[in-house]
Amino acid sequence: MPLVRIDTLGADAGRLHALSRAVHEALVETIGIPDDDRFHILTGHDGVRSTLRYDDYLGVHRDDDIVYVAITMRSGRTPERKQAMYRRIAELAHEYAGTEPRNVFVTVTENEPIDWSLGHGIAQYVEERTPDPPRE
Amino acid sequence: MPLVRIDTLGADAGRLHALSRAVHEALVETIGIPDDDRFHILTGHDGVRSTLRYDDYLGVHRDDDIVYVAITMRSGRTPERKQAMYRRIAELAHEYAGTEPRNVFVTVTENEPIDWSLGHGIAQYVEERTPDPPRE
Amino acid sequence: MPLVRIDTLGADAGRLHALSRAVHEALVETIGIPDDDRFHILTGHDGVRSTLRYDDYLGVHRDDDIVYVAITMRSGRTPERKQAMYRRIAELAHEYAGTEPRNVFVTVTENEPIDWSLGHGIAQYVEERTPDPPRE
Repeated sequence: MPLVRIDTLGADAGRLHALSRAVHEALVETIGIPDDDRFHILTGHDGVRSTLRYDDYLGVHRDDDIVYVAITMRSGRTPERKQAMYRRIAELAHEYAGTEPRNVFVTVTENEPIDWSLGHGIAQYVEERTPDPPRE
Repeated sequence: MPLVRIDTLGADAGRLHALSRAVHEALVETIGIPDDDRFHILTGHDGVRSTLRYDDYLGVHRDDDIVYVAITMRSGRTPERKQAMYRRIAELAHEYAGTEPRNVFVTVTENEPIDWSLGHGIAQYVEERTPDPPRE
Repeated sequence: MPLVRIDTLGADAGRLHALSRAVHEALVETIGIPDDDRFHILTGHDGVRSTLRYDDYLGVHRDDDIVYVAITMRSGRTPERKQAMYRRIAELAHEYAGTEPRNVFVTVTENEPIDWSLGHGIAQYVEERTPDPPRE
């Protein structure tokens, strides 16, 4: 269910995929989503007709390796889980993509179970399951 | 007022427009927005420098025809309206773009009337209208 | 901390940067963010494989100069601040980029301090600072 948008500078598909893997594994480990609950939109901006801007806010020196990770998910995760999630995303982004932790920028937006339809026009998190017919 | 982001794989402009039409008509029919309340950001990812990731979460088999629909709108729609909206988006995406309902992924993020400025630097949903001057 | 997405039509990098500057300065002036708190994702859509849709909702005539500005930030700004922010974004977009105020569309999505990690895998707005070790 999390829908994750990852935005980077540069057209390196390998790096984008490494970052996608880093974020996904961090979510599986820290907030307990299933391994196949992976929904990512990955954009490598060319720096001309689409680009990123950043600065050194909070004394963190960032550069063109910056990665924006915007996660939309259901509310309910504790602060401790979210903090573990941020730590693990930064660790794995470094391990898989060589991105320095100072360049990993994450923000979370929350909604509710009714706010998701994961296929078939159904709001899977709230619909009652149709029971299987009894077997004879 | 809904701001809708639609992300697909592939550079088929006709398909993007068909999906845009499907989502818009579904919103008009099910949550009652006016017909000219259409604000969409449509992106067909090339699969290389920008791309989508997905998996078979909840037993729904998805493929490269996947469509991510992210809707930002004011809070207040009932669960029943949202469920009708998901159903209708999936139906019309199939009818207009040939997208199978299993490939239609929708998420909603809500905000409040003060969170919109639809032109002229005004928060239209909360500002008092300046009355017309009296005519003589 | 605000994460700002700006979407336009056309590949004019100068215009994108002018809009980015307009939005940033408006935020600094009206909601009091520090000058180095700048985090923008700027996309100029080519109009073919990625594009924008809009209409004349609320009697505002828009055209291909439309600018979508989507701001994610922590909750807590008053309605008056937000209204000042919208006004100033429209003014500066006109001054710096020549964009007419009718074409400036802004929406805000809010979250909480725990929902931000601005580098180093830390949730800066909630973490207690580790005190420096005592010197001997």
